[in-house]
Amino acid sequence: MKKFGFSIAKKLGEGTLARAGTIHTLHGDIQTPAFIVVGTKATVKALTPEQVSCLGAQAVLANTYHLYLQPGDELVWDAGGLGKFMHWDGPTFTDSGGFQVFSLGAAFGKGVSKVAKGEDAEGSGDGRSSSQNHSAPAKVDDGGVIFKSHIDGSSHRLTPERSLQIQHNIGADIIFAFDECTSPQDPHEKQKHSLDRTHRWAVRSLEEHKKLRGTQALFGVVQGGKFQDLREESARTVGVMDFDGFGIGGSFIKEDIGTAVKWVNAILPEEKPRHLLGMGEPIDLFLGVENGVDTFDCVAPTRMGRNGGLYTNDGRIAITNAKFVNDLGPIEKDCGCYTCKNFTRAYLAHLFRSEEMLGATLASIHNLYFIVRLVSRIRESIMAKNFLQLKDEFLKRYYG
Amino acid sequence: MKKFGFSIAKKLGEGTLARAGTIHTLHGDIQTPAFIVVGTKATVKALTPEQVSCLGAQAVLANTYHLYLQPGDELVWDAGGLGKFMHWDGPTFTDSGGFQVFSLGAAFGKGVSKVAKGEDAEGSGDGRSSSQNHSAPAKVDDGGVIFKSHIDGSSHRLTPERSLQIQHNIGADIIFAFDECTSPQDPHEKQKHSLDRTHRWAVRSLEEHKKLRGTQALFGVVQGGKFQDLREESARTVGVMDFDGFGIGGSFIKEDIGTAVKWVNAILPEEKPRHLLGMGEPIDLFLGVENGVDTFDCVAPTRMGRNGGLYTNDGRIAITNAKFVNDLGPIEKDCGCYTCKNFTRAYLAHLFRSEEMLGATLASIHNLYFIVRLVSRIRESIMAKNFLQLKDEFLKRYYG
Repeated sequence: MKKFGFSIAKKLGEGTLARAGTIHTLHGDIQTPAFIVVGTKATVKALTPEQVSCLGAQAVLANTYHLYLQPGDELVWDAGGLGKFMHWDGPTFTDSGGFQVFSLGAAFGKGVSKVAKGEDAEGSGDGRSSSQNHSAPAKVDDGGVIFKSHIDGSSHRLTPERSLQIQHNIGADIIFAFDECTSPQDPHEKQKHSLDRTHRWAVRSLEEHKKLRGTQALFGVVQGGKFQDLREESARTVGVMDFDGFGIGGSFIKEDIGTAVKWVNAILPEEKPRHLLGMGEPIDLFLGVENGVDTFDCVAPTRMGRNGGLYTNDGRIAITNAKFVNDLGPIEKDCGCYTCKNFTRAYLAHLFRSEEMLGATLASIHNLYFIVRLVSRIRESIMAKNFLQLKDEFLKRYYG
Repeated sequence: MKKFGFSIAKKLGEGTLARAGTIHTLHGDIQTPAFIVVGTKATVKALTPEQVSCLGAQAVLANTYHLYLQPGDELVWDAGGLGKFMHWDGPTFTDSGGFQVFSLGAAFGKGVSKVAKGEDAEGSGDGRSSSQNHSAPAKVDDGGVIFKSHIDGSSHRLTPERSLQIQHNIGADIIFAFDECTSPQDPHEKQKHSLDRTHRWAVRSLEEHKKLRGTQALFGVVQGGKFQDLREESARTVGVMDFDGFGIGGSFIKEDIGTAVKWVNAILPEEKPRHLLGMGEPIDLFLGVENGVDTFDCVAPTRMGRNGGLYTNDGRIAITNAKFVNDLGPIEKDCGCYTCKNFTRAYLAHLFRSEEMLGATLASIHNLYFIVRLVSRIRESIMAKNFLQLKDEFLKRYYG
């Protein structure tokens, strides 16, 4: 039984590709646009599933590379699949592991990683945690990739078929085709060569997926770097394949969203959902939605939170800043999150200064609530046809 | 307005000092015997107050020394007191800071600390976290103690009066007189000298407490090391003072509970509650209750939990042990805690192996539930007059 679908409730028009819709999965619906919370290793860092649910998250995205290495996809299968294993009842995603294999291997140090500071491994945006990666590049050929585990240095081979088998074992509702991830610095020729391989792998991913007869939805991944011809070729090629939806991959900065993402979404079939992989800063969300993105995932809210960085409507604050030590107000007035309703800035500052784990928990709750709620407000603004007004107002205030 | 009281519902008899009762505070009742959960720095490590409440905890004990240094007792006062600051609605305790001042200072390295392994600072059982302590002993005289902060090395003076002022600012429901904490290795003469000072400080603590006119209950602290004459002298001396209850201090091992604790409780006035400071292993709880203790606090459940040590009725297990990697059962069958109802041993093993913070949270919930529930069962067994049977059965199974 397969039960996946996507319906569009409203298109904004007004020169944008923005739309509001609903993704249907076996584990419930996702109202889109939506921010998918990252739970890399089958846990949203520092939060219980109930906390994730209470802050408004609709779905969780885990990481194939990480779960394959630890605890192993077969254990997740034995445990009843990702949702049961981590006690999350709602819809789940896994990415294909492609990004991690390459960011942990061949492309390491060449700028594939979306993470600037080499922090702890999380989500679809990184996985770098050992210097051994420098000396153990992933080896890629048309068959697949051989890479070394960042945990114990053991050697592994990932192919489109293996990625699909692993993702079927993990059992998320929405899974992704295995792609080759390039460095944004790679020249056109190299991008083209890699893109052709990604397209061949897309075909193999689809074939394996059909063979496995799972209940899952498979999304194809569009690549092509910053080159318009490659992005459009990729959208045309992957767009006509029998995927349930699409991931837009690669390393983006916000300037690419109005170009690369727009080129792609202008071509991809309108009736299928599109996921922008690994982007989720406020500006990314507005630009992504404006240019036809339905779902996002990003480690920023939780990673930033663990470091004491907090979203407010007036921009980010660092709770470790001395001025918050005696501040008995909430992080943000009128914020509806658990943290703001029950704790002060002074208390959070105390937790971070004391290196208490609850600090990371409360900050992650606030940040995820902020971002999830922001995307939810964006959805409402599409339905009410005032998206561009919200965008202007929000960005003006947030970025000052 | 002061609203503190203690009523005894049932005395077990049968050659024991065990009793079941109720402590009444402004923030609610505590059914005794009770395990008081430790929230050293105004947070129960890795848990939200709701999680603490849901696992059955009735009250939280924070640490005067730690809160005085960071974030400062005046901020806690400004925030509305400990309960409001940390968002805990129920009854609260603070210890006097005496133990930490001495374990971080003069007595450091001489065995005052109840903690064997020098782990992270928590609760009433330690505070050692910096090697600078070795070179900066606390200086004690009849006036009070001068010590250096373990955080920044700054110099501070704590006296009975200051401790009470700080504890009034922090604003817990139950607070403790400032005492001098000795090393269990100290000879009789030194213990006696120190005990006399603790008794003079008890008088000064009481006087300052009356001057401050707070709504709090003040517990006097009985010391005396392992010497029967000193313990009994201390119980007689402190026992007749106008305290609302008593703390039994010092460094104990379980062998001392049937002696030192029994000597003390045979003398202390029956109608006032007694708190055994910093002890809480299963055997301690049974022996403590049998010998007249009403409340306990201990960092073991949370500290052990953060290291992957888990209580079961068949003894402790280490979840990081290889045999749990594929174990899809709960930590303990029929355990009613949130962790056991929703997660497997394999999932916990995965979280600990992946160094995911949720592991510490789930393990702390289970361990605290286990201990809180155990003391609650002990209470029920006193009411039902089958305490000794429960003790025999539990200890036989737990310690094998």
